[in-house]
Amino acid sequence: MKREDVTEMIVASKIAKKLKWSQIAETVGQSKEWTTAALLGQMTLNEEQAVKVGKLFGLPEEAVALLQVVPYKGSLPTAVPTDPLIYRFYELVSVYGTIFKELIHEEFGDGIMSAIDFRMDLKREPDPAGDRVSITMSGKFLPYKKY
Amino acid sequence: MKREDVTEMIVASKIAKKLKWSQIAETVGQSKEWTTAALLGQMTLNEEQAVKVGKLFGLPEEAVALLQVVPYKGSLPTAVPTDPLIYRFYELVSVYGTIFKELIHEEFGDGIMSAIDFRMDLKREPDPAGDRVSITMSGKFLPYKKY
Amino acid sequence: MKREDVTEMIVASKIAKKLKWSQIAETVGQSKEWTTAALLGQMTLNEEQAVKVGKLFGLPEEAVALLQVVPYKGSLPTAVPTDPLIYRFYELVSVYGTIFKELIHEEFGDGIMSAIDFRMDLKREPDPAGDRVSITMSGKFLPYKKY
Amino acid sequence: MKREDVTEMIVASKIAKKLKWSQIAETVGQSKEWTTAALLGQMTLNEEQAVKVGKLFGLPEEAVALLQVVPYKGSLPTAVPTDPLIYRFYELVSVYGTIFKELIHEEFGDGIMSAIDFRMDLKREPDPAGDRVSITMSGKFLPYKKY
Amino acid sequence: MKREDVTEMIVASKIAKKLKWSQIAETVGQSKEWTTAALLGQMTLNEEQAVKVGKLFGLPEEAVALLQVVPYKGSLPTAVPTDPLIYRFYELVSVYGTIFKELIHEEFGDGIMSAIDFRMDLKREPDPAGDRVSITMSGKFLPYKKY
Amino acid sequence: MKREDVTEMIVASKIAKKLKWSQIAETVGQSKEWTTAALLGQMTLNEEQAVKVGKLFGLPEEAVALLQVVPYKGSLPTAVPTDPLIYRFYELVSVYGTIFKELIHEEFGDGIMSAIDFRMDLKREPDPAGDRVSITMSGKFLPYKKY
Amino acid sequence: MKREDVTEMIVASKIAKKLKWSQIAETVGQSKEWTTAALLGQMTLNEEQAVKVGKLFGLPEEAVALLQVVPYKGSLPTAVPTDPLIYRFYELVSVYGTIFKELIHEEFGDGIMSAIDFRMDLKREPDPAGDRVSITMSGKFLPYKKY
Amino acid sequence: MKREDVTEMIVASKIAKKLKWSQIAETVGQSKEWTTAALLGQMTLNEEQAVKVGKLFGLPEEAVALLQVVPYKGSLPTAVPTDPLIYRFYELVSVYGTIFKELIHEEFGDGIMSAIDFRMDLKREPDPAGDRVSITMSGKFLPYKKY
Amino acid sequence: MKREDVTEMIVASKIAKKLKWSQIAETVGQSKEWTTAALLGQMTLNEEQAVKVGKLFGLPEEAVALLQVVPYKGSLPTAVPTDPLIYRFYELVSVYGTIFKELIHEEFGDGIMSAIDFRMDLKREPDPAGDRVSITMSGKFLPYKKY
Amino acid sequence: MKREDVTEMIVASKIAKKLKWSQIAETVGQSKEWTTAALLGQMTLNEEQAVKVGKLFGLPEEAVALLQVVPYKGSLPTAVPTDPLIYRFYELVSVYGTIFKELIHEEFGDGIMSAIDFRMDLKREPDPAGDRVSITMSGKFLPYKKY
Repeated sequence: MKREDVTEMIVASKIAKKLKWSQIAETVGQSKEWTTAALLGQMTLNEEQAVKVGKLFGLPEEAVALLQVVPYKGSLPTAVPTDPLIYRFYELVSVYGTIFKELIHEEFGDGIMSAIDFRMDLKREPDPAGDRVSITMSGKFLPYKKY
Repeated sequence: MKREDVTEMIVASKIAKKLKWSQIAETVGQSKEWTTAALLGQMTLNEEQAVKVGKLFGLPEEAVALLQVVPYKGSLPTAVPTDPLIYRFYELVSVYGTIFKELIHEEFGDGIMSAIDFRMDLKREPDPAGDRVSITMSGKFLPYKKY
Repeated sequence: MKREDVTEMIVASKIAKKLKWSQIAETVGQSKEWTTAALLGQMTLNEEQAVKVGKLFGLPEEAVALLQVVPYKGSLPTAVPTDPLIYRFYELVSVYGTIFKELIHEEFGDGIMSAIDFRMDLKREPDPAGDRVSITMSGKFLPYKKY
Repeated sequence: MKREDVTEMIVASKIAKKLKWSQIAETVGQSKEWTTAALLGQMTLNEEQAVKVGKLFGLPEEAVALLQVVPYKGSLPTAVPTDPLIYRFYELVSVYGTIFKELIHEEFGDGIMSAIDFRMDLKREPDPAGDRVSITMSGKFLPYKKY
Repeated sequence: MKREDVTEMIVASKIAKKLKWSQIAETVGQSKEWTTAALLGQMTLNEEQAVKVGKLFGLPEEAVALLQVVPYKGSLPTAVPTDPLIYRFYELVSVYGTIFKELIHEEFGDGIMSAIDFRMDLKREPDPAGDRVSITMSGKFLPYKKY
Repeated sequence: MKREDVTEMIVASKIAKKLKWSQIAETVGQSKEWTTAALLGQMTLNEEQAVKVGKLFGLPEEAVALLQVVPYKGSLPTAVPTDPLIYRFYELVSVYGTIFKELIHEEFGDGIMSAIDFRMDLKREPDPAGDRVSITMSGKFLPYKKY
Repeated sequence: MKREDVTEMIVASKIAKKLKWSQIAETVGQSKEWTTAALLGQMTLNEEQAVKVGKLFGLPEEAVALLQVVPYKGSLPTAVPTDPLIYRFYELVSVYGTIFKELIHEEFGDGIMSAIDFRMDLKREPDPAGDRVSITMSGKFLPYKKY
Repeated sequence: MKREDVTEMIVASKIAKKLKWSQIAETVGQSKEWTTAALLGQMTLNEEQAVKVGKLFGLPEEAVALLQVVPYKGSLPTAVPTDPLIYRFYELVSVYGTIFKELIHEEFGDGIMSAIDFRMDLKREPDPAGDRVSITMSGKFLPYKKY
Repeated sequence: MKREDVTEMIVASKIAKKLKWSQIAETVGQSKEWTTAALLGQMTLNEEQAVKVGKLFGLPEEAVALLQVVPYKGSLPTAVPTDPLIYRFYELVSVYGTIFKELIHEEFGDGIMSAIDFRMDLKREPDPAGDRVSITMSGKFLPYKKY
Repeated sequence: MKREDVTEMIVASKIAKKLKWSQIAETVGQSKEWTTAALLGQMTLNEEQAVKVGKLFGLPEEAVALLQVVPYKGSLPTAVPTDPLIYRFYELVSVYGTIFKELIHEEFGDGIMSAIDFRMDLKREPDPAGDRVSITMSGKFLPYKKY
């Protein structure tokens, strides 16, 4: 059994039980963003969380153990994603990449926004011209060291 | 002369004049995010904006005309970016791509977040453990049509 | 079970039952274009449609549930398609890509043709020199926002 | 001098003279779709057309000669286009590729839609919910020969 | 069952029965070139041909049905083939590609040689310095339409 | 100066002088197929041929010397060609690659068709349903050695 | 069953029986280089050799038949090999490729070293500074034909 | 000036002066294989050698200095070479890669053949059936360390 | 059974038995770095080590035999790794590659750092600002030979 | 002028003046590792450092300004490096990537080694069996946040 098999079991069980990620997140006791990432094989659960998830989805013991092992991350089958929703985010990196770079360097100097010490909040933004998806990403700024 | 040549002129002049993107944005009369994107060759200026930019950076007439032509977008030299700052955003798409997909579909159904009817706000988030980069992206949700 | 398995079941059953996509579309109550896309794993069915499709092809319950989950889209095994019929469309993008871009920008300004708020109509165009394939695509124009 | 240099001259002159492709097409005496393709280096002009174009844009004799030579076709810098407008068409091939294949084969049998004996018509489709881009493509059906 | 499975069955049965493609072609009633292409999953058989092939190789009914469905074409596992025999043909395209282009355009004008309305004849050419492979390809010339 | 520069000079001069490859081939004293390959930078000329070509196109001495140096072969800018005419040949390799392999092995055993001890003949095949391009390729069969 | 399955059977049996390639070569009656290539799926055995190999490794009849069919050649999973031993050979091609080209052309004129009419001898070269791997490759020179 | 420019100067001068690599090697005082590699930008010359080469080809002082700087190695424009002569060596790696691996491991255990402590000898092998290219490569065996 | 299957068995058993690599290394009698590499399929064990590992993880005899066979090395599924931890090392090569090159050449002359005669030591470096990962790599310098 | 042009000027001047990176580092007042990275276009200098560097190499004012602008990082021309010295580091990532991952996760839990808060020390390690290259890398461990 591999972590991808655990992910597949969770997804199948979630569909069968008609659960929502936000409900699952409450069980796990973390945000819906982190919980979804963890259950889709991108984050590591601690023992308590893994046991809860195991119960919720009826997972075998081996799967519960695998949820506590650091996974090989990366959730996409190709370097340039084909799914239109995910592609739009890739397009934002392609079109706005150098813009992110310029504005962060102007504000902070040479360094990066951490993708590890990072949190994300995704919510609906009501709008009369059609509701909007609003995503706020917050990552620690890490300056390059001189030595 | 091509649009990339105009971008290069602007960047060289900006360094020589020690201008900031936020100052330039005030001249243009748009947000610093949109202005930076436009002057780095990703957006189209109207005539009034192009003339202002031309004066600010001392651009020749041909360059001012080119700023008003829709550019071929895409600001990165490779499909997977090598620059560490920009790569972190690509990594977010790679790691969180399916998570974005799940959560947006859970909230909105089948469709995408527009990367066109889109705005972005990048700011510093003070934090005692080290300041953070905060980026809020807002895109209209576009549902797939059945027909 | 994955969505691809459902697609494979549908295709096998369609061959065995000698059904046509246009007949299936009548059962589903949508156009043949949308119905084919949905049953080949590119669109999401609602519960009523999924149940009808399940009956028509004798699908198990799990498959009927999967038809109602938003799929990971993209129907081709390689970035540049090898099948001659599909390649011709890729060739049109390669040869006419910048032409589409110029003419849409001339007519509408900077923005894109939506591939989401989109419909398509494919029909036979009788012609004494050999019948023709006629495809009409209609997508909402989405202008880039300034902010 | 290469054909790309001629394309660049034409584009620069078009911007300077504020000409539209539809006006240029009238001078050439062909549709705006074909004319744009030809002047962006994808089609071959005959002598009469090349001379007219040369006059319109003030091209040197060598450029006028090159317009009459069959070009190496393909208008995009990368196999997967980065420009959002052009990418949407690539996305249509990726998502709808097998759908085009199924429906054309159902209607016509094994064969392809010609991308050579082909014409295209791009126009604005007024719509109260936002105007739409309408593209009609018509290509001769070419059946595979048995021998 | 997929078309590739049918191909694999045919190849295994052909080896076991020590049949030659030229013998099989006689049963099918087409040239050995077309027959080999069809049985290796690149062409579509009609019902009569499929039934004959099914008997010859002892195929199940589902396989006989699949032989009558238009396949997803493309017979190679990689974009640049690794097999030395097949690579030599790729090399011919790489080295002689622009030469084919120049000579066909010189003789016919702008257009292509059809790969659909196409036939091929492969035979041994006896030669005292070592026998030669002779391949004659004949494809209809398709001129680009102006419109 | 590089061989590509010589190719470019020859092509420019050929257009200016309105020469045909078949006429040039007569001057060189070889077939039009080989001559075109040689002058497009794929073959090596001997001194006598290079001098004739130099006179015909008015090339400088350095160019005449370069024509006698073995070139780095390969005439296409990308691994999968974008030009529709050349792509059709790549498609033939993709679709018929394993077919070539089967039929040559059936006739000759394990080995390849040489792409070096090779000649080609390209001609017009008149046909009431539209003239055809006929290409005959003849390559020595080279069997694998056992040792 | 496919040729790769036969290769896998042979490799597993070879490990279990602790056989060496040089011993196997004696059974087959060819050099160890050719024998290893053949049993790893790169060459074709005749009936006598295949029967011997079948007995030695206890292969089923279908496997013995497959050893006599010309395989699809190419033994590496990626275009640029990741295994350090094999990569060193790729590196030699990368670093010395143009050097091979220059020296072979200087000695022989335009043409290639055959990779088909080819033999190889790999042996240990004792050396006080550490033993060396010595590989001698001998391939027939094939000159380009003029025609 | 870059090392590639020095390579180009040397190649142009070599053609003009009708020098052979074997003659140049005598001047440099190394083998023709190493000398060709060095002058095509793959190896580093010492001061004495660089000065000799500078005189022989009439190079400016800056070029002579650059010949003594370690170059960025790799002599081919693409990962899979297009030139037929060089491709044959790549094909040998592709077809014989795992064979090299098996035989070297059988003889020496786990480790590699060095591509650094390496020498090569290329010569003509007269043969009544056509002369052969003979290449002997000798590299030190480097065993993997356990620690 | 293949080496990857052995790796998978070991990893599953290690999770079930809650063993640490450092503990396993003690059993094997080598460093934790080498032991981890060997058990993840990158190095070859001798008989004694393989037997110990077989007992520790309860492996079948065939797996114990496979641990003693030189594996096809390379532990990553893609050329550019997607896992953030592993990517950071790839990024170091991308950003510091030419820096490694300059400094090693300045210190040692032309040559390389061996990746075969190589050892590595990974340890925690306590630091009040957050503990650090410290990796020391030591590889023999191998100078290029002149010959 | 672009940053790459500044890098090229510095490298040319360094060769002409026979300077060593360690000497230059003393002038700049940082380690030789950081200094080399900065002057090869991977790091940003402050004003004082840039002025010193400008004097040392005789750079124009525009170049001195560019040294203070954050560069687009990534020092290699291809995703898989061709230079043997640099490739060895890529090979280490390929072979040891999952080993780094296992050992860092065992010691620290889920997270990464920073490539930003990072320092490196490269030195000669004398060894009677041949001197060794010793590289010590130290990066802050960054744990994934749960939220």
